[in-house]
Amino acid sequence: MTNRKPRPAAVTLKDLAAELGLHPSTVSRILHAEGDTARGAAAPATAQRVRDLARAVGYSPDPQAKSLRTRQTHLLGVIVPRLSDLVLAVMYEGIEEAADAAGYSTFVMNSLDNAEMQRRKTDIMLSRRVDGLIFGDAHLDGDILTELAEQNVKFVLMNRAVQGFPSATCDDALGGTLVAQHLWDRGHRVVSVIAGEPYASTAVDRTSGFVTRWKALGGEIPEAALVWSRFDTIGGRIAAETILSDVAHKPSAIFAVNDFAAIGAMGAATEHGLLVGRDLAIVGFNDTSLAAQLPISLSSVRSPMTEIGRTAVQMLLATINGGPVESVRLAPTLVVRESSAFQRT
Amino acid sequence: MTNRKPRPAAVTLKDLAAELGLHPSTVSRILHAEGDTARGAAAPATAQRVRDLARAVGYSPDPQAKSLRTRQTHLLGVIVPRLSDLVLAVMYEGIEEAADAAGYSTFVMNSLDNAEMQRRKTDIMLSRRVDGLIFGDAHLDGDILTELAEQNVKFVLMNRAVQGFPSATCDDALGGTLVAQHLWDRGHRVVSVIAGEPYASTAVDRTSGFVTRWKALGGEIPEAALVWSRFDTIGGRIAAETILSDVAHKPSAIFAVNDFAAIGAMGAATEHGLLVGRDLAIVGFNDTSLAAQLPISLSSVRSPMTEIGRTAVQMLLATINGGPVESVRLAPTLVVRESSAFQRT
Repeated sequence: MTNRKPRPAAVTLKDLAAELGLHPSTVSRILHAEGDTARGAAAPATAQRVRDLARAVGYSPDPQAKSLRTRQTHLLGVIVPRLSDLVLAVMYEGIEEAADAAGYSTFVMNSLDNAEMQRRKTDIMLSRRVDGLIFGDAHLDGDILTELAEQNVKFVLMNRAVQGFPSATCDDALGGTLVAQHLWDRGHRVVSVIAGEPYASTAVDRTSGFVTRWKALGGEIPEAALVWSRFDTIGGRIAAETILSDVAHKPSAIFAVNDFAAIGAMGAATEHGLLVGRDLAIVGFNDTSLAAQLPISLSSVRSPMTEIGRTAVQMLLATINGGPVESVRLAPTLVVRESSAFQRT
Repeated sequence: MTNRKPRPAAVTLKDLAAELGLHPSTVSRILHAEGDTARGAAAPATAQRVRDLARAVGYSPDPQAKSLRTRQTHLLGVIVPRLSDLVLAVMYEGIEEAADAAGYSTFVMNSLDNAEMQRRKTDIMLSRRVDGLIFGDAHLDGDILTELAEQNVKFVLMNRAVQGFPSATCDDALGGTLVAQHLWDRGHRVVSVIAGEPYASTAVDRTSGFVTRWKALGGEIPEAALVWSRFDTIGGRIAAETILSDVAHKPSAIFAVNDFAAIGAMGAATEHGLLVGRDLAIVGFNDTSLAAQLPISLSSVRSPMTEIGRTAVQMLLATINGGPVESVRLAPTLVVRESSAFQRT
């Protein structure tokens, strides 16, 4: 029907044995055993015929039967809060690309940032015998991670860092620093931050990086200036409503630690009759593909999302191979656009 | 260290056997065999003790060893073009939710809409012994699907339909019809369509639904009015550049078959000095969470994305259980916002 090679495991050991007039166990030893067992299985010429035919018909052993022997599934588990967060979806593309190149398949699940869900999804993945896990949903308390480490489960963190565990992240504090310097230079003195979820290092580090630099420049950040929120559009919208409805603290600029939250803030600003890029500056984080195309283009901190995913895979494979791995923090850059380019007078 | 129940497969058959002073094979027959074999394995009281202990310690058999017996992995494979397309990511959340509720885990991969990649990812999933597949990346030619059907692989389609295979989709033609009627009623007579990829039913059906109604209303759609494009922001940007640079055909409205493409078109319009919602109407498709929050809110056809994902799972499980399944097309609604609310005079 088609001229492509048979699907893996479409041809069985029995087929090969029958074709060659050998006993299946002989064929099995030749193809699956190592060293002396393999050499002792048959005459070199016979062994060669078996290997040639196996290659010719694209024979591959049942990956499950094989994994029962080797305990290696070449499956990597990935758990993220939600793939509908474009940032994680893009990082996952980096993971899949790097894993694929290394001969691994990946398996991703959403934990919705819920602790009970994180445990359940982790259990499912371990019961599927993944060789290792990449967590994109780590919480700063690190409870689950400590348990897994005690159980000698192989894993690395991605996007979010937790003290004491290897992680591939953006240098989030630096990103916040760049935004503080930019807004200060543009003449802003009263600002607010849509800070994200307090259990995520991305939220905490981007916010603290911003606050530290802002204070170093002589600025002030009152309580009311920091509003924690969900990382999505609706979360940003709600946080911005809170900020813009506060009569005591009237910011001329808002830093949202996530592009989607920034877009939600743009919606709230419009609602309050403020023109973003003239009455109010807004800066997001990650520089997703949308930022540059919005009717009012969004300034954003560009983080190397795909590279972070690829790096997490390299680190996990090193961990699986028993090597010690160092956390990696990739440097971001600030891209200034219409939403925050104006000089405040 | 913690008070949670042991992770599945942390306790082995041997542990249970030792604990009870029985032979592992006896324990195995009691827990894994059925009917007479199970009954013949030991006295009812003994069998009960084994089951009670197994439950008490949270014993679960090695899923791979078990799957070799039963050929059931309770794994469902999902292949989408790219999870960074928010529409597919949201549908996947529906899939995961429904699969989880039915006791299945899911495994998702990106095929990037590349035929060779579609085959490879499908092969990987089949070699992992998934019980069935959900394809969110079907191409209208259906070549790969025909092969899989001939090989009796269990699968259903999601988001995109192909004649002759069960699919869970939005009624895309109806969506296009709603947009054509809306733009006509608002006084537009010269329009263009950013049509998406010609190999995807979503693109073809949304476009043809629009064109059919537009002509029925007495409108015209010259060649130049239809521009095929990628489904993402950049694709929409490029298509809109083509449309807005055409001196012969100057549309007052653009229908983009995808919200991200519509956002790309907004970027191009701004670039050309056109104010969306006054000089140019733009309507998108899917009503993603962004549409309502954009600085100029985007009119969009709302499709039940999560529901489509859930439906695909129900259909796949029915297929796995041997039942015949009918394709399901869920009805969309049009949400009119600032980007196309104005009356053209």
